[in-house]
Amino acid sequence: MSPISLLSLLVRPHARGLRTVVASTIRQVNATRALGSVIPRKLEAPSALFGSTIRRLSTAAPEFFQVESLPDSSTTVTLDNKIRVNWHDGQQSQYHNVWLRDHCRCPECYHQLTRQRLVNTFKIPTDIRPSDLTLKKDTIEVTWANDSHKSIYPLTWLRQHSYDPPLADPKTTEIPIFWGAEIAENPPTVQFDDVMHSDSALSHWLTNITTYGFSFVDGVPVTPSHTEQLARRICFLRETHYARGLWDFTADLAHGDTAYTDLALRAHTDNTYFTDPSGLQLFHLLEFDGTGGQSLLVDGFHAAAELHRRSPDAYATLAEIPVPTHSAGDAGVFIIPTPRARPILNHDPVTGRLYQVRYNNGDRSTLTGLEARDVERFYEALRRWDEVIEDKAMEFWTALRPGRAMIFDNWRCLHGRAAFTGHRRLCGVYLNWDDYRSRVRVLGLSEEKERLI
Amino acid sequence: MSPISLLSLLVRPHARGLRTVVASTIRQVNATRALGSVIPRKLEAPSALFGSTIRRLSTAAPEFFQVESLPDSSTTVTLDNKIRVNWHDGQQSQYHNVWLRDHCRCPECYHQLTRQRLVNTFKIPTDIRPSDLTLKKDTIEVTWANDSHKSIYPLTWLRQHSYDPPLADPKTTEIPIFWGAEIAENPPTVQFDDVMHSDSALSHWLTNITTYGFSFVDGVPVTPSHTEQLARRICFLRETHYARGLWDFTADLAHGDTAYTDLALRAHTDNTYFTDPSGLQLFHLLEFDGTGGQSLLVDGFHAAAELHRRSPDAYATLAEIPVPTHSAGDAGVFIIPTPRARPILNHDPVTGRLYQVRYNNGDRSTLTGLEARDVERFYEALRRWDEVIEDKAMEFWTALRPGRAMIFDNWRCLHGRAAFTGHRRLCGVYLNWDDYRSRVRVLGLSEEKERLI
Repeated sequence: MSPISLLSLLVRPHARGLRTVVASTIRQVNATRALGSVIPRKLEAPSALFGSTIRRLSTAAPEFFQVESLPDSSTTVTLDNKIRVNWHDGQQSQYHNVWLRDHCRCPECYHQLTRQRLVNTFKIPTDIRPSDLTLKKDTIEVTWANDSHKSIYPLTWLRQHSYDPPLADPKTTEIPIFWGAEIAENPPTVQFDDVMHSDSALSHWLTNITTYGFSFVDGVPVTPSHTEQLARRICFLRETHYARGLWDFTADLAHGDTAYTDLALRAHTDNTYFTDPSGLQLFHLLEFDGTGGQSLLVDGFHAAAELHRRSPDAYATLAEIPVPTHSAGDAGVFIIPTPRARPILNHDPVTGRLYQVRYNNGDRSTLTGLEARDVERFYEALRRWDEVIEDKAMEFWTALRPGRAMIFDNWRCLHGRAAFTGHRRLCGVYLNWDDYRSRVRVLGLSEEKERLI
Repeated sequence: MSPISLLSLLVRPHARGLRTVVASTIRQVNATRALGSVIPRKLEAPSALFGSTIRRLSTAAPEFFQVESLPDSSTTVTLDNKIRVNWHDGQQSQYHNVWLRDHCRCPECYHQLTRQRLVNTFKIPTDIRPSDLTLKKDTIEVTWANDSHKSIYPLTWLRQHSYDPPLADPKTTEIPIFWGAEIAENPPTVQFDDVMHSDSALSHWLTNITTYGFSFVDGVPVTPSHTEQLARRICFLRETHYARGLWDFTADLAHGDTAYTDLALRAHTDNTYFTDPSGLQLFHLLEFDGTGGQSLLVDGFHAAAELHRRSPDAYATLAEIPVPTHSAGDAGVFIIPTPRARPILNHDPVTGRLYQVRYNNGDRSTLTGLEARDVERFYEALRRWDEVIEDKAMEFWTALRPGRAMIFDNWRCLHGRAAFTGHRRLCGVYLNWDDYRSRVRVLGLSEEKERLI
């Protein structure tokens, strides 16, 4: 795949109808930056960085299997304990018999509605063999020798789920675009009325979030109730020890957290102390009579890529050293995550992709459980990280205002605020990562469902 | 520490006032079994099993530091970039200057109410040095050369948080006791009225759960509302796509999950498809007019230990190979966890401890993303696991009845049910792991707070 086609992939979300996007010159710069920092970085990064279980998916991107051309060129071969499929494009896939039997999709073996496995995996003979195998136009039919059960596998499904070797093109439509201070010129924004009444506007809103990690919503009636209705267009609200659903607070230290003060808050992510930090956070400033209090957003994935560029060692350190955290400011609450400590930069052990920034220097517990030799390395890496996220070119400062809600991906973006004086009333909600992502998938804004289940 | 004193530790929860416990002969057997399978296993287990970042805590259990005897025998020494404390018992701890400065607990550096760090970690000079250091009766006072800031560290706190080497005794009061079918003779049980009106009864209930992974509650008024009130003694209810809080269902397939049918359900844990599976689940049978439907519980930690005894290789495989899962039975819902796939047996990367069993063979997605050579190894390990959890000696079958609620740890216990006929109305709730654990900590039933923050 040439750089040009990658670039077109990167801008595809716009082509799909985003109403408000960053200015095109900026987009160009950022798309290039994203190109230069996410995709090659991922492949360059030392595998040690991601732990020992990392496995790389095939980086080749073959044309997707064409059903109509198959009968002429596909063949199947039974091996000792596997079936091999020779694809028309010269690729070969091998499937273990036990794997095939376990993945039979007939109504007896697989609940068609709930999409749950019914077959008794444990009664499959270890030496299971086909007694008959037939290649049809677009399926392979297998009859199993032990009990004459017949399984039918669509060739598209087999190609899509080939694991030896992996051949599927993830075909995701989600392409993050990194940004910095320049996003202030034209931040991604949608209109409340559109989002509330149109699923395509809702999709635009969600695409803003998956692309930039945040979005404004303008024209929101200035009430907690309308703010909640807006959030519920994505999913139900997450209850925490702070609130049943929607927060609505002033600087009264109603909870034992510096968020409930008028202090400045440096860039951080929320809920580092939860096993599962909230996925999205939405703020709506309802009342303000005072000075200061500007909001800060930093693109944490961009910052991570920039850290990797400046110092691969610092990146590796923050991807490796587990940091303990806690929430213990309220008398009846003492939350710590399980496992007890996590890195600041969290990578999927299978794909090696950065999926979560978990960073709040204030919530960091006493740092024990690390090797003595890692202490100075950790503080040095933390300094480099701080230099990146405090870089003026990375910071997007904005004054919230009544009628404009701000939503952001708390696994990607850091947020903060300036100190303030006077009266400030802010409401907001947390949304679960899993339920937000479910909504994105159901609206067809991510990878295809059939590949994933 | 001799086996005898370990044994007394293991039974300590009983001494602390558990009202209902298993018969003492069984307890003895189980305590021995736990001894033989958790503690030594953990130390014997190959470190490869837990990934590359595992670090062992000191296994020595020194007497805890005695403040009163210190002035005679403790000394401090400043090294190039560290301070060394020579403890009265011959131990030595070293603390990096940067670590000490970052952990200053004065009101300027650390918010006394919210327990959050205020010091600017990133302004600490890399070559920070003390200009003065004084050992007092129970503190060390350090004045820092760069800005004359004075930090005071209690010796107990320093000892507790020694990381080079780790010296703290976790002093947990939570000792899991493994069980099998024999638990049916006298299952851990508390009374509804006690739990609702007394914090010590609540503590007994929670101690049942942390010790055995489950508990019955008898005398529950047969209404959804009383069931909810009972659960709220622990924490708020978790909302999911299934329900706002309390479930109340019959076999009507109201949701696309086999739970909502009359089919048998093999032993499994719930929510394998969530990033953060529910920590506790509570069931209360409200109405039943039919046959079958008995409930099954299996102690998953016991099963894991037994698997390790029978086949360390199978254990290692299930601790290593990530398994993708999904919930996709409802039209508007498509949940998968992030990271995409997790092992069945999940270990804390720092301590190496098994903390979560995540197992539902029905919710397992198409198994891709693993190496071809791992396929047969995985199915073989799964067969061994199934043999253990289907062993009659491991299964606790019980007929739920109106008035008796059953709560269990969904990260430890597997549950299932027999197929049934007739009318069956069950209500239940999910509780978050983090909030359940917070309650356990706040009630003083786990490790000391000060060691953890």
